[in-house]
Amino acid sequence: MTVVLRDARRGDVADLLRLIRDLARYEKAEDQVEADVPQLAATLFGEGATAHAMVAEQDGLIVGLAIYFFNYSTWQGRNGLYLEDLFVEPEQRGAGIGKALLARLAALAVDRDCGRFEWSVLDWNTPAIDFYESLGARPQSEWVRYRLEGDALKALANTA
Amino acid sequence: MTVVLRDARRGDVADLLRLIRDLARYEKAEDQVEADVPQLAATLFGEGATAHAMVAEQDGLIVGLAIYFFNYSTWQGRNGLYLEDLFVEPEQRGAGIGKALLARLAALAVDRDCGRFEWSVLDWNTPAIDFYESLGARPQSEWVRYRLEGDALKALANTA
Repeated sequence: MTVVLRDARRGDVADLLRLIRDLARYEKAEDQVEADVPQLAATLFGEGATAHAMVAEQDGLIVGLAIYFFNYSTWQGRNGLYLEDLFVEPEQRGAGIGKALLARLAALAVDRDCGRFEWSVLDWNTPAIDFYESLGARPQSEWVRYRLEGDALKALANTA
Repeated sequence: MTVVLRDARRGDVADLLRLIRDLARYEKAEDQVEADVPQLAATLFGEGATAHAMVAEQDGLIVGLAIYFFNYSTWQGRNGLYLEDLFVEPEQRGAGIGKALLARLAALAVDRDCGRFEWSVLDWNTPAIDFYESLGARPQSEWVRYRLEGDALKALANTA
């Protein structure tokens, strides 16, 4: 088995969407996938794109995906690297592909002078949490993310 | 009183640092501020900068600050707007400057076709939480952010 990690290319978009749908199916959230090929092409590979994808290719087939962007720490005055999604096809698990993607992104974070490498996990996902803690990652449990979307977002925007 | 909201410029960096320090002092975290003028200039105004600042100017003096970047939703295949920090000098509060900055960013999020406008709050900060909920923002309480930094980040990077 040969696994290659590389930056995703525009020509990978159909494969990225396949993996995104597989991830959503795995999380029983397939009905929440609104992404399509043109949307992914524009937001990951279009001019000024700020989100990026890395893929794991096994014997020429894309079997793993990491989607990330650069966040920011005001205290540090530095970027961080934020991993939005990490997915490896269930049949390919246990071979270290997920950890290899994490390690590659950690190296990218160090290379780009990022102070932190961060991601989020569902609080009931104990196997993932145990794995992250074994890497030395620590929970920022006192922080709660708030989200404004849909009509509430438009209503606030209209007061500007 | 005339309040103007505008994108920050490179020439504002000393003022941005002043506000960042005021914010840190307000949160009793001044010793955690590592940011300095060259670092902020590079990460907010340098080539390829992905973090941005908006300021509130009152009678020519910068009294408020918002630092944001674009995050990403894999399900949506779209960017979101993430507000990293929002600060208004304590003496200028109650005049709606904070809400005006939020509204301007909400409008920017809509303009850039972002699906979401998000930020994080400390779980004990009830006045802020009440304000955010009054805007229609909803907590993503089941998500915990994990952070890898320092030696643990380097150790993982070295396995790449």
